[in-house]
Amino acid sequence: MTVVLHDYWRSSASYRVRIALALKGIAYERVAVDLVAGEQRRADHLALNPQGLVPVLEIDGLRLTQSLAILEYLEETRPQPALLPEGAAARAHARALALAVACEIHPLSNLGVLARVEALAGSEARTAWNRENIARGLEAVERLLDHPGFAGRFCHGDRPGMADCVLIPQIYNASRWGVEFQDLARVSAVATNCVTVTAFVAAHPDNCVPHRRQSDW
Amino acid sequence: MTVVLHDYWRSSASYRVRIALALKGIAYERVAVDLVAGEQRRADHLALNPQGLVPVLEIDGLRLTQSLAILEYLEETRPQPALLPEGAAARAHARALALAVACEIHPLSNLGVLARVEALAGSEARTAWNRENIARGLEAVERLLDHPGFAGRFCHGDRPGMADCVLIPQIYNASRWGVEFQDLARVSAVATNCVTVTAFVAAHPDNCVPHRRQSDW
Repeated sequence: MTVVLHDYWRSSASYRVRIALALKGIAYERVAVDLVAGEQRRADHLALNPQGLVPVLEIDGLRLTQSLAILEYLEETRPQPALLPEGAAARAHARALALAVACEIHPLSNLGVLARVEALAGSEARTAWNRENIARGLEAVERLLDHPGFAGRFCHGDRPGMADCVLIPQIYNASRWGVEFQDLARVSAVATNCVTVTAFVAAHPDNCVPHRRQSDW
Repeated sequence: MTVVLHDYWRSSASYRVRIALALKGIAYERVAVDLVAGEQRRADHLALNPQGLVPVLEIDGLRLTQSLAILEYLEETRPQPALLPEGAAARAHARALALAVACEIHPLSNLGVLARVEALAGSEARTAWNRENIARGLEAVERLLDHPGFAGRFCHGDRPGMADCVLIPQIYNASRWGVEFQDLARVSAVATNCVTVTAFVAAHPDNCVPHRRQSDW
């Protein structure tokens, strides 16, 4: 049965799932949902995900939502190669890193939230809000990476995993918004290393052709 | 070894972990971290959690952060009673519900974010921001609960679990901010049922004595 990912090329949550699918070697078809055009609120998409969000992954006869729940599902059903390290303590650290991005940084940077900030206080305030939020969040991630599980190349251990699937899209977002993170040695090391891994290259928004749209968001 | 939870009585993320500990019957001591007084930024707390957030759970010689990572750790190390249902598909739905609150509602309602909105646009805008965000988020949860896994009493199946641990603190928050959710039949059913479960009663902010502070947040 074909695996289908409904996503948006620049959506961080979509990008996380693309990386995970690539790391696990799961072939899939993409269906682009243009968030800027509001396609996530169309009836056909709401039938897939009543939250009106991307990504949605159609797999094993299911329609899965919420990127981190999707990653956990892939890990449970296709355990190799693993996205989480062995041992409950190490897994807790890897999950905490992923959540430090998914719950602390990303929710404040999504399209709808930034539009609300702009409506309240203007476009400069919107830009400042987002840059400050990303910068502060990545600094926290840098401190969390100061951990025995950090071996210098990926977020935890010597293989890319769940935390990298979440951090790399956030770094892409930081770069787009001109947030400097070169002073964050561990975050920078992860960023530098992951660009050499085929799965991360394949999942990059710029490689989401032919479905890529030339949107300004 | 004593289990110690560093928390704040009204913090939703802390409340989630208190419920989970109670559901699993894990005895613990509480150390109150007064977020309104800024204690989360003190050196002693930053040594526990460099993110400067609560909760932190000291357990098994570890210091765990990020509430959902803590819940997953508890589930892996103390599997009974289970916080997640059996079967990868059911688990994906339960996790998606938890994340629909933890990633879509809660991050926009925390103390720091509301202070930033108030600084940008005033206290009325802050209140409107939060009420709108909570209302919209709970409506999405209501739609996600329209699922075969919803049996009428808890978020998934016939026992309280991870999604309830996350939803109930959000409902407490909704009530504090005067957000009506009685029209959301499934959300209301979960709220009504969970108040009868001892673990949820024990974990309620009002029962966090003697560490409770009479803060206005």
